[in-house]
Amino acid sequence: MRVLITGFDPFDNEEINPSWEAIKCLPTEINGIEVHKLQLPTSFERGVATLVEALFALRPDATIQVGQHGGVASLQIERVAINLANARISDNDGNSPKEKTILTKAPTAYFATLPTAQIVRELQASGIPAQLSYSAGTFVCNTVMFTALHFAATEMPTLKSGFIHVPYLPAQVVNRPAVASMSLEMITAGLEKAISVLAD
Amino acid sequence: MRVLITGFDPFDNEEINPSWEAIKCLPTEINGIEVHKLQLPTSFERGVATLVEALFALRPDATIQVGQHGGVASLQIERVAINLANARISDNDGNSPKEKTILTKAPTAYFATLPTAQIVRELQASGIPAQLSYSAGTFVCNTVMFTALHFAATEMPTLKSGFIHVPYLPAQVVNRPAVASMSLEMITAGLEKAISVLAD
Amino acid sequence: MRVLITGFDPFDNEEINPSWEAIKCLPTEINGIEVHKLQLPTSFERGVATLVEALFALRPDATIQVGQHGGVASLQIERVAINLANARISDNDGNSPKEKTILTKAPTAYFATLPTAQIVRELQASGIPAQLSYSAGTFVCNTVMFTALHFAATEMPTLKSGFIHVPYLPAQVVNRPAVASMSLEMITAGLEKAISVLAD
Amino acid sequence: MRVLITGFDPFDNEEINPSWEAIKCLPTEINGIEVHKLQLPTSFERGVATLVEALFALRPDATIQVGQHGGVASLQIERVAINLANARISDNDGNSPKEKTILTKAPTAYFATLPTAQIVRELQASGIPAQLSYSAGTFVCNTVMFTALHFAATEMPTLKSGFIHVPYLPAQVVNRPAVASMSLEMITAGLEKAISVLAD
Repeated sequence: MRVLITGFDPFDNEEINPSWEAIKCLPTEINGIEVHKLQLPTSFERGVATLVEALFALRPDATIQVGQHGGVASLQIERVAINLANARISDNDGNSPKEKTILTKAPTAYFATLPTAQIVRELQASGIPAQLSYSAGTFVCNTVMFTALHFAATEMPTLKSGFIHVPYLPAQVVNRPAVASMSLEMITAGLEKAISVLAD
Repeated sequence: MRVLITGFDPFDNEEINPSWEAIKCLPTEINGIEVHKLQLPTSFERGVATLVEALFALRPDATIQVGQHGGVASLQIERVAINLANARISDNDGNSPKEKTILTKAPTAYFATLPTAQIVRELQASGIPAQLSYSAGTFVCNTVMFTALHFAATEMPTLKSGFIHVPYLPAQVVNRPAVASMSLEMITAGLEKAISVLAD
Repeated sequence: MRVLITGFDPFDNEEINPSWEAIKCLPTEINGIEVHKLQLPTSFERGVATLVEALFALRPDATIQVGQHGGVASLQIERVAINLANARISDNDGNSPKEKTILTKAPTAYFATLPTAQIVRELQASGIPAQLSYSAGTFVCNTVMFTALHFAATEMPTLKSGFIHVPYLPAQVVNRPAVASMSLEMITAGLEKAISVLAD
Repeated sequence: MRVLITGFDPFDNEEINPSWEAIKCLPTEINGIEVHKLQLPTSFERGVATLVEALFALRPDATIQVGQHGGVASLQIERVAINLANARISDNDGNSPKEKTILTKAPTAYFATLPTAQIVRELQASGIPAQLSYSAGTFVCNTVMFTALHFAATEMPTLKSGFIHVPYLPAQVVNRPAVASMSLEMITAGLEKAISVLAD
């Protein structure tokens, strides 16, 4: 079994992105699963293009996209992506679409095709704070999640796909002491556990 | 130099107390300082008594009391303790004093005599989220902090004393995914750094 | 023009539901629009049935469902409803569906067909805190919002439909002083403004 | 009986200060008590000077200082003021003292001499969210509260004094929809109730 796991480069004036920092720490094999890692640009256009190109090249059995959700205290296993982009800040190419349909011929939303409830249960059983989330926002993360699910639905029906939002790392909130964070070790362990669930 | 660092036993239906879990992980010598560890009961009466007895026995140069503040996202270096006990929940002896003066012959408040601002600066410089806090609450933590400072002021004028509140551990919030936590490693590193500052 | 606005009865141990308290205060005509009011039971089954029956009987031009979202600080103009019910607590009939598809023949999600962005702009211009929300949760509110949008899509294509979540009233948080609330007057003014936008 | 109630002018880029907006709405007599209103500048130096001058001129039986605490959801009846100024932002004169003792010959702290617990009880009984607070911060509010209590202790021993922090008004958070606020009517009613308690 082969999994493509993607993180993003830093955005919104951050120097690191916890999604990519954690993915760098993952082993290349988990529970018998081949783990392929890819960094995506935090860009509405290039993020999606980079992911789709890799899916064609690698043809994995599953793909998990991972992104930063500043302020949350636990891993957010995203349940649904919507066909809407609405950016409050600019992406790394300077784009900030407003109330824009991502793909005009696609449906309103897709549910993740990963076993989301099982991932939450196994993360919690491992002592890792986690929950289902019902909104991946309307920035690049949701666009990438939505497009990957549409790509799977239309081009690679056996591909399982989904998204995990992760908290800030402690280093990002040193001067924002009211904002929650999670250690790199725990985020990494959470992603490893999520991948290992896919082998079941 | 000799430091007494204290943590509390679990309270409020928790099975662990992050203050004591972290203290157990500390080395017994930090930056040339002898580190003595002591668990206090989360009890208005016995907590204070246990601490004062240990201060007489050990006669340390400094003491740091550490306690759990569920919900905070960073280490809280307490700046002040007030002469007031007002408990919303029961302590581990079933006591919950209401609007009660802790010591009738003591002043309204004491400032911590540890170098609190320097501790915050050095924690942040080490990548550990931390801030000054101006209220240690009105439960057992504040009572212990206040009593230790009064004891120092009246009985052991060279003793430096202060209090650090720490977040929940991740294991405590697995099923409360909106509540902040901090890893055991980071809490422990923070306490070690706070002690090392005392050598300066 | 005719609008059906619905609120819910109290649930989750509350004695009132701010949605219905505010709707009771609305005039029966706003900006030339006939306002029809209806209380729905907080019930996955009866809530939907009551709404659909009223839509057939009244054949309004638009319908706004309103519900309580305890803890939010502003009016939440919901942008999307998903085809998923997942209840953490019981509804008023004792039901708590888990990871259940609401309507097996319906799509994954519907976007609200009310002018949501314009409503947010006009509320804010009137001094009423408001924002777009991208998740109506997975309890009765989302089920009613989803079903109304599906009903409109399949049975009454000209019907505009959407959902507004409102904060607690101050009376509900008197003993929970860290929880946000909004005055009855402001919630009512917000709903009145949202209806008046429909006349444009 | 005569009460001096003070609010502050706007600070920190706000255009209004809810403390003064509410005080302007108070009647000049409450429950047989003469109510005198005064606006203080949000200035470490002039705020205190303006208050002390008014206390000498008016010689009231009690004084309540009121200030804005952005982000809180309820009225905060302050229990204690500390002899420490530590400003993160500049006051309206451009001053931002760091770790500075307010009055070198004064004690570490003063408890409010208003019936704080009774005020909280009566506010809650009136349906107004309120709680005791154990930190008035370290900005101008705490300095004014501390200085007024020191003035009472040393110059006017019969003067009762204390401080109430109030939330933002809705108009201040229209574009910050996650931040709590309270209506002008409820803040005003809360201050009126707090004053009326003083007649008991």
